[in-house]
Amino acid sequence: QVRGAPAIALLGCLSLAVELAGGAGPSEDLGALEEFVGQKLGFLLSARPTAANLGREAERLRAFVRQRVETPGVTPQQLRESIIEYIEGLLEKDRRDNRNIGAHGASDILARVPGGGPVTLLTHCNTGTLATAGYGTALGVVRALHQRGSLSRVFCTETRPYNQGSRLSALELRHDGVPVTIIADSAAAAAMRERGVQAVVVGADRVAANGDVANKIGTFQLAVAAWHMGIPFYVAAPSSTCDPTLASGRLIPIEERPGTELTQLGGVLLADPDVDVWNPAFDVTPHELITGGIITEWGVFAPSEVCQAL
Amino acid sequence: QVRGAPAIALLGCLSLAVELAGGAGPSEDLGALEEFVGQKLGFLLSARPTAANLGREAERLRAFVRQRVETPGVTPQQLRESIIEYIEGLLEKDRRDNRNIGAHGASDILARVPGGGPVTLLTHCNTGTLATAGYGTALGVVRALHQRGSLSRVFCTETRPYNQGSRLSALELRHDGVPVTIIADSAAAAAMRERGVQAVVVGADRVAANGDVANKIGTFQLAVAAWHMGIPFYVAAPSSTCDPTLASGRLIPIEERPGTELTQLGGVLLADPDVDVWNPAFDVTPHELITGGIITEWGVFAPSEVCQAL
Repeated sequence: QVRGAPAIALLGCLSLAVELAGGAGPSEDLGALEEFVGQKLGFLLSARPTAANLGREAERLRAFVRQRVETPGVTPQQLRESIIEYIEGLLEKDRRDNRNIGAHGASDILARVPGGGPVTLLTHCNTGTLATAGYGTALGVVRALHQRGSLSRVFCTETRPYNQGSRLSALELRHDGVPVTIIADSAAAAAMRERGVQAVVVGADRVAANGDVANKIGTFQLAVAAWHMGIPFYVAAPSSTCDPTLASGRLIPIEERPGTELTQLGGVLLADPDVDVWNPAFDVTPHELITGGIITEWGVFAPSEVCQAL
Repeated sequence: QVRGAPAIALLGCLSLAVELAGGAGPSEDLGALEEFVGQKLGFLLSARPTAANLGREAERLRAFVRQRVETPGVTPQQLRESIIEYIEGLLEKDRRDNRNIGAHGASDILARVPGGGPVTLLTHCNTGTLATAGYGTALGVVRALHQRGSLSRVFCTETRPYNQGSRLSALELRHDGVPVTIIADSAAAAAMRERGVQAVVVGADRVAANGDVANKIGTFQLAVAAWHMGIPFYVAAPSSTCDPTLASGRLIPIEERPGTELTQLGGVLLADPDVDVWNPAFDVTPHELITGGIITEWGVFAPSEVCQAL
């Protein structure tokens, strides 16, 4: 019932905080409480194989718990409270990180386009307030440009089969008064050529050590089109999206989802229900196509350098 | 209520034949009957600006009528009958042309892939029995390969916003026992890379003198992806699709359709109904991306040569 890699990581951790605040888990023994938290995090991790954030946050939280357990004099109750506090801090950090992503991305794009803007962007899927704690990653860049008066228009792809672009991105951008136009996923290359798109900005579910990026299905195709037309292609993601344990994007597990996502919509049958469907939820964009760079809360990095730098 | 450039041309002409057979138009005067036919054809032409076939067929029919009017001794009734007969012949010719397109395309693709097949194809929109008089253009190539036992599988893009791929192509191919898989439009580049697509075959609404091709929105994006991955890209179309009067694809008029095609589906609202939508029905693929060639009823041609050759 929740989507967007950062929002999934946050909600996963927040649900743990809610459980802990409600008194779940052992209360007599530090080691048992540590093990309880570890098991809960392991269960959350199994829910979404492609996104990296949850794994990163889980690892950090485990290290935090370990450190607290080893601190002399800490009681189980104090450990419990410090875990809840830590998780609440993540929410604020995500919002702050997104504003920094927006600021770095906006400056980099404006420095790159002739005349310094205003610019026409294209984005994919939803990476905004409905996928993060607020503001957004790729949509954070869009928002930052709009707030500086430097955005002409943003094209949002419909993003089949779940239509996050037309349903969510268009909705939240219109709500904020951002000039937005929706297009079919098929029309992206035509929009780049015919409607003056100057940069493409998308989010990420996981960044491999070499800078390859897993993101919503269709991202690879957009990157190829942008490459062909010489339009800079940016990925906007918090540093927690980096997974230095995977050498390349080919090692990122790609979730395949039911074919009914393509053959049915809101009870309407769109195709023969028995037809064979290939429905990967994500694809991998090789680092060499990410010509704009990877925008993080620390700045804009070359894809091959981002995981080492952070 | 009818779609597919060849089917539109045929149905336009057939509707004229039905009117003539029912006694419509002047019956006393050859010149008046010629003018009546010319007016009807002009009205049909205004309905679909992007497709070339209707214009081509209309021009040929006008020339035929002119020649009959000038033949000594022809009565208005004979003229009427010969026009009906001429139009009926178009239907048979379209089926025959499609079988030739299928045969030429299948041979060319098999000669090109290592090992001589069986091959995995990708196609877009619907170009089959539901878009032509029967058999199909790009789907004619798919059918011919299947009949030769040389088709592993064909991937059909959903083809938003009208879903001709998932609704029509998948249906008619499954009906004929052809192994078919539907994918989101966004998944086409991923399918090329991950699922071993060896050639892309699409139809055409109009081919300009330089070999640029107007076809269903998304064709350009597929051609860019195929180019990037070194996969041959074919256009399959009858010679009547050629329009030697337009020097390049930039001169082909592109029909823009209502945004509601993207925001609504079978009564289900897919997006904020007031959002701005850009919904071109077609795009233009530059001739240099059509690396496989243009498959016609006369054989496979280099894009830049097809309009001169035919």
